[in-house]
Amino acid sequence: MSSAERDRLARVSLSRLTEPGDLRLLPLVGELGAVKVHELLLAQGDLGEAAADLAQRLGDEDPARDLERAERLGMRFVIPSDAEWPIGLDDLSGVEPLQERGCTPLGLWVRGPLRLDSLRESVSIVGARSSTSYGDHVAGEIAATCTAAGWGVVSGAAFGIDIASHRGAFSVEGPTVAVLACGVDRAYPTAHRDQLAYLVKTGAVVSEAAPGWTATRVRFLARNRLIAALSRGTVIVEAAHRSGALNTANWADRLSRMVMGVPGPVTSAASVGVHQLIRRGATLVTRGEEVLELLDASGGHLLIEPRAPENARDKISVRHRQVLDAVPVHSGARADSIARAAGVGLIEVCRSLRSLETHGLVEQRVDGWRLGELGRA
Amino acid sequence: MSSAERDRLARVSLSRLTEPGDLRLLPLVGELGAVKVHELLLAQGDLGEAAADLAQRLGDEDPARDLERAERLGMRFVIPSDAEWPIGLDDLSGVEPLQERGCTPLGLWVRGPLRLDSLRESVSIVGARSSTSYGDHVAGEIAATCTAAGWGVVSGAAFGIDIASHRGAFSVEGPTVAVLACGVDRAYPTAHRDQLAYLVKTGAVVSEAAPGWTATRVRFLARNRLIAALSRGTVIVEAAHRSGALNTANWADRLSRMVMGVPGPVTSAASVGVHQLIRRGATLVTRGEEVLELLDASGGHLLIEPRAPENARDKISVRHRQVLDAVPVHSGARADSIARAAGVGLIEVCRSLRSLETHGLVEQRVDGWRLGELGRA
Repeated sequence: MSSAERDRLARVSLSRLTEPGDLRLLPLVGELGAVKVHELLLAQGDLGEAAADLAQRLGDEDPARDLERAERLGMRFVIPSDAEWPIGLDDLSGVEPLQERGCTPLGLWVRGPLRLDSLRESVSIVGARSSTSYGDHVAGEIAATCTAAGWGVVSGAAFGIDIASHRGAFSVEGPTVAVLACGVDRAYPTAHRDQLAYLVKTGAVVSEAAPGWTATRVRFLARNRLIAALSRGTVIVEAAHRSGALNTANWADRLSRMVMGVPGPVTSAASVGVHQLIRRGATLVTRGEEVLELLDASGGHLLIEPRAPENARDKISVRHRQVLDAVPVHSGARADSIARAAGVGLIEVCRSLRSLETHGLVEQRVDGWRLGELGRA
Repeated sequence: MSSAERDRLARVSLSRLTEPGDLRLLPLVGELGAVKVHELLLAQGDLGEAAADLAQRLGDEDPARDLERAERLGMRFVIPSDAEWPIGLDDLSGVEPLQERGCTPLGLWVRGPLRLDSLRESVSIVGARSSTSYGDHVAGEIAATCTAAGWGVVSGAAFGIDIASHRGAFSVEGPTVAVLACGVDRAYPTAHRDQLAYLVKTGAVVSEAAPGWTATRVRFLARNRLIAALSRGTVIVEAAHRSGALNTANWADRLSRMVMGVPGPVTSAASVGVHQLIRRGATLVTRGEEVLELLDASGGHLLIEPRAPENARDKISVRHRQVLDAVPVHSGARADSIARAAGVGLIEVCRSLRSLETHGLVEQRVDGWRLGELGRA
């Protein structure tokens, strides 16, 4: 057996034994390698009751059969030495843990045709489970814009903003990946069974938790770090105060990823957490083009700021504009008072006023000149 | 006549002769004083036709009668040597001009009982003329909160956000000031005649433009710098792309005042300008308390961030929480698998689960333990 295959089997074994993001085991694996840690744990059988139990459970594992069975069901276990390994996950080893979770995972269980190394150009979009239709709409629009430009969309398949983001990607047949807190063979939430099946067929469903495992709070917390690490930046669309989406934003920030927030009405509870995030330094974004501009290091998506269409005022000469600027908005003024205000000679002012009048920019009334319909625009 | 009175009369004279924010005259007055500049201009009568015209018009002025007539109509002309002078305006002399307007004004024409030197603790609230009901609501709330705390609200009495801000101050009988682009004896916009009359009775209406003068575009641009300079910070509530409110924000920024923006739905054209402003560095604010916290240098309005009410999860012991965190959200798990996930001994896990069950945090089903109603909250 090649050393890569021994590494893979050790990782499968350990992944059955430990919780996602476990701070006791994962740093050790990072330091010594999975094979060595596996051996050490097996050898500890002599050390006492608890260790004996652990060693026995490790001994009972049959990772080769486990892998074979997973493969039959269309799952693969991607590990750091694989070409498909998304290298962004390696950044997790250099980051302080959060809520007792952290580190690079042992591997990722994956279902679906999308290759994880293609996520180098991807954005995470997450937010409130109890989102508003406004939030769903904006999340879907941003996801559609990003995936239409070839970027992947990573989210968590949860109710609300997560599933709206996946749907936005579906709508343009763009690449999208769901990172789950349960095994990739399970459908959680069950209401999204169809969407998860579609992701398995067209994108990817990913998890650090072994097949068959259920979702727990700890696994959700560990999952959030993967969403942040897999993408180049995280967009929070709606998040109430103390929302789980803010946990993902926190991870993105620690990982030096771009943290972006979509504002909403200040009267909406669903936007409170996002507004706090922006106040603490996250970048406000309003549409997918802005997200791409921020994330694309190559500068390929630099935005030209939208300019309002030119109006009649923009088209006239500097001298005419000087006169126009001195014409009252409301009540009328005589040509000599306009001349004084404009600092322009009286004869020239009269000539200008006639010209401006033909353009609808000024009009003459009994009490003098005032701005015309177009001059007020 | 005292030198202060000679200064006042010279300033009245010059204010009749020059446009608000004029870059030719105002810097000269700052350097030489109004009396000297007035004398120099009179003496230029020998220099040629244009200068002779100017000198003649200056000679025709009767500033003493002008002042007297203004006073009879309840107006006063506040100049830099007056105790009432709002010293914030002096900052304008150190700032680069914008759209050919700038500098400290010669003086301010004022109507109303509010003393301008009380504006040291004030905030400007400005925004779109074509505001939405959302914007009007938020502007009014912020104005009411700030004035209820004793702060003044400065705005421009325009349609939309401006008048909503004044109204918010009215609602709590708080101090508020309108800075106009026309003379303070005029009502512009005319639809706000009643509100302006109320301001004259309870607050103040202020202008750099001489009594009788109408509003022009140039005077609006010059007016914006006064709104920014009179207050400690400017809040933009709604502003479309290229809105005049952004001109005021620009002035506030140049004057090292705090620039704040209230976000709105990204789907609302009325919020586009504010979002751009926040993306360029303005501080996002969602309510009056945040505005006060930012502006109050004394720290008297420091906010304690709102905390969500404690839930059942917060009240249990660390050990119980460890067990709770390992219980699946959805499908059931047996006690031994929970013990493994939690890293806690089996007997202790069973004891914990029973205790958590009595609190409604977990529940036992045929397939094992899962989170209860309260555990999912």
